[in-house]
Amino acid sequence: MTPARNPQLNKNGELIHLLSTEGLSRDILTHILDTAASFTSVSNREVKKVPLLRGKSVFNLFFENSTRTRTTFEIAATRLSADVINLDIARSSTAKGESLLDTIANLSAMAADIFVVRHSESGAPYLIAQHVAPHVHVVNAGDGRHAHPTQGLLDMYTIRHYKRDFTQLSVAIVGDVLHSRVARSDIHALTTLGCPDVRVVGPRTLVPSDLSHMGVRVCHTLEEGIKGCDVVITLRLQNERMSGALLPSSQEYFKSFGLTPERLKWAKPDAIVMHPGPINRGVEIDSAVVDGPQSVILPQVTFGIAVRMAVMSIVAGNEA
Amino acid sequence: MTPARNPQLNKNGELIHLLSTEGLSRDILTHILDTAASFTSVSNREVKKVPLLRGKSVFNLFFENSTRTRTTFEIAATRLSADVINLDIARSSTAKGESLLDTIANLSAMAADIFVVRHSESGAPYLIAQHVAPHVHVVNAGDGRHAHPTQGLLDMYTIRHYKRDFTQLSVAIVGDVLHSRVARSDIHALTTLGCPDVRVVGPRTLVPSDLSHMGVRVCHTLEEGIKGCDVVITLRLQNERMSGALLPSSQEYFKSFGLTPERLKWAKPDAIVMHPGPINRGVEIDSAVVDGPQSVILPQVTFGIAVRMAVMSIVAGNEA
Amino acid sequence: MTPARNPQLNKNGELIHLLSTEGLSRDILTHILDTAASFTSVSNREVKKVPLLRGKSVFNLFFENSTRTRTTFEIAATRLSADVINLDIARSSTAKGESLLDTIANLSAMAADIFVVRHSESGAPYLIAQHVAPHVHVVNAGDGRHAHPTQGLLDMYTIRHYKRDFTQLSVAIVGDVLHSRVARSDIHALTTLGCPDVRVVGPRTLVPSDLSHMGVRVCHTLEEGIKGCDVVITLRLQNERMSGALLPSSQEYFKSFGLTPERLKWAKPDAIVMHPGPINRGVEIDSAVVDGPQSVILPQVTFGIAVRMAVMSIVAGNEA
Repeated sequence: MTPARNPQLNKNGELIHLLSTEGLSRDILTHILDTAASFTSVSNREVKKVPLLRGKSVFNLFFENSTRTRTTFEIAATRLSADVINLDIARSSTAKGESLLDTIANLSAMAADIFVVRHSESGAPYLIAQHVAPHVHVVNAGDGRHAHPTQGLLDMYTIRHYKRDFTQLSVAIVGDVLHSRVARSDIHALTTLGCPDVRVVGPRTLVPSDLSHMGVRVCHTLEEGIKGCDVVITLRLQNERMSGALLPSSQEYFKSFGLTPERLKWAKPDAIVMHPGPINRGVEIDSAVVDGPQSVILPQVTFGIAVRMAVMSIVAGNEA
Repeated sequence: MTPARNPQLNKNGELIHLLSTEGLSRDILTHILDTAASFTSVSNREVKKVPLLRGKSVFNLFFENSTRTRTTFEIAATRLSADVINLDIARSSTAKGESLLDTIANLSAMAADIFVVRHSESGAPYLIAQHVAPHVHVVNAGDGRHAHPTQGLLDMYTIRHYKRDFTQLSVAIVGDVLHSRVARSDIHALTTLGCPDVRVVGPRTLVPSDLSHMGVRVCHTLEEGIKGCDVVITLRLQNERMSGALLPSSQEYFKSFGLTPERLKWAKPDAIVMHPGPINRGVEIDSAVVDGPQSVILPQVTFGIAVRMAVMSIVAGNEA
Repeated sequence: MTPARNPQLNKNGELIHLLSTEGLSRDILTHILDTAASFTSVSNREVKKVPLLRGKSVFNLFFENSTRTRTTFEIAATRLSADVINLDIARSSTAKGESLLDTIANLSAMAADIFVVRHSESGAPYLIAQHVAPHVHVVNAGDGRHAHPTQGLLDMYTIRHYKRDFTQLSVAIVGDVLHSRVARSDIHALTTLGCPDVRVVGPRTLVPSDLSHMGVRVCHTLEEGIKGCDVVITLRLQNERMSGALLPSSQEYFKSFGLTPERLKWAKPDAIVMHPGPINRGVEIDSAVVDGPQSVILPQVTFGIAVRMAVMSIVAGNEA
């Protein structure tokens, strides 16, 4: 009996879609990070652009609005010399009652090379990847609570940039883990890359105890959670995704889990602090930490361009 | 007495604007289809792009939203190496009380080369073509109930691709003919190209009997309408354009005119089935037909890119 | 004691941001106009584009919608071979509670080269210029009631084109001066360029008497205001910016200050008439004047492309 094939890989085991960091091998993750590193001269603007995807069409399919993520993909595609078509799907044919799969079939027929997909439903990019024409590569730019693999990969790039060896690190992910596709993508990537100590940190309402099967340690106090850590990843409090009466208010959350300069001392002195943005200053993180010497939040954004260039150039280079 | 000149042609009889398939000669229609055929290597992506319109500016002026049509024009322009400027007119100066002609005069002054115009008012692209600066070419991307000439042309391209000789064909156009700019553009093109048997098919409320002056046969039953046909063009039931109490419900319509696999047997065994999209599955057409072996609905989309490349490169090459 | 440095200039006195025409020397203004003149072959489309900003990224940051201004900047950037990223900021992260400065820091980290900024708050582009990374150049595309320097510069370009020598001219600015960033930018540029007679003309509610400190003459009748003028700049009546009960209705305004062909005779016979658009025909200006022989309103639009090309190429060429 052969295992079900990973829909992200072709029969040679090469990456043809990026849907999740889950199920990708250490080799593939490392290949993406190495490729991203090779684009440093582009992302720091020594080299303006490279011709790797010249003439290819990248469709930005944002069923859920996200200017920040759309923009970074558009920049990455442009710096690979691709042509970018932005589709404001929420206002388009789907509003005329067309099904998602009919929309996708139509866009495939326009001979796109890459679909960058953001969708509020978990799993939508998988469904799309199953139905696109063979010449189309799908990159998940965030689906529901499920995955945000390019964010996970740029987090890995950032950690490797500052800390080098994953196998020696303690990494804490603090905050609204329950609603966070970023946390899921980070956890899968960190464990695959050999990180021996991944902790998820937050109140019981936001950090379910049953996450321990993912190979992480669950901590319900910030001190326990970040003590001795090399990396502290703070998550955005997703007010807009929350529902239910058991959730903490912003003030309550900050009182217990907000990352202040004092509390950051629980981590290692050279620990780095990350955040996927957009930041709620004074809710999950204090302004003094955001703007302080241990923050690598803005370098994350810059690395994100190189990582998205890497992902698009790799998938476009492999045949279904 | 000389006849009024066709506003689509210059004094040498060359195409400078595409406003309607009405009034275009068989030679011009055939020239557009032949030019589109020459772009096959681009639309199938063997060749990424051609430099025919390098540096030219194509303005997408969508007074009425249409992501699908806007996108195909944007792709076509990009593959001709033009620069595309998308103007979301609904949200712009016209909202500040500026007149259509002042908006057009301003955009002309920005030295556009091509205006692609979608407008809810029939005739708006004609008005615009009368008032643009001589260096601007206007392409109608759909005006009210009047015309959608690039859809008509891509339909002709599709028919010629599968059936070769228009002079031997029976073509049925089924559905909401009354509200359909696609139907009008198809009928004018088909009759000019020599198609001897064009039928329009639908209930009396949607297919007026007085269409017979257009050289078509009016049929009020589906069986009579598609019997022995080579081509069945199904139209979208334009719920959003309908008004009045005499119109059929979606269910009633499907019962009498919905194209099912059984009914399709009334047409020739090798008949092709077309639809301009977006499809209402189970209203004007059954899913089994959409996804069946006689459907050429997705190839229509792909051919549409080549046809729009042809139209833009032809008009931009001729001088007012 | 050294004076506070102008934030628009680097330590060599070169232009690195364009925030206002105020504080720019006659040399710098003239350099911009001369550079714009050098782009005439591009703006009149003899030359399609120039490679001056090839591979550079221009971000259009429109916190306030303006299709017309955004489009002219996009065209100008495209004709310099830059890549343009349009950000619809109103719908983006700022809506998720992110602060303006965090948004700007993030966009800087994406390695933009130029930010084109439109904002409803006066001074926002200054704040942004203070906080961007050193490689980012800021161009103000209109901030509140404060400044609209590229409009001011294209007005200067237009005046110089038709009238040559600023030191011999009488220029009248007629209308809603109080709410007009265009008027402010025009006044600063005109006085710096040596124009000896600048008049602001309108009812007391719209033209405060205390503007005389800006080196202008305040006139409360149209006849006095435009008598013997070489240039009449009419302003848009900014209904959407007005508030309060003391303001004139459109009809009242037109009765006293609307520019008609008869009244235009008060100016010199060869006076030119300008307007920044969009025009309210029959409110601040009569249609017969808009479309008449003295109107240079559409040439202003065309010159605007060359001026914006000049501004972007100059700032991008200077190092912070």
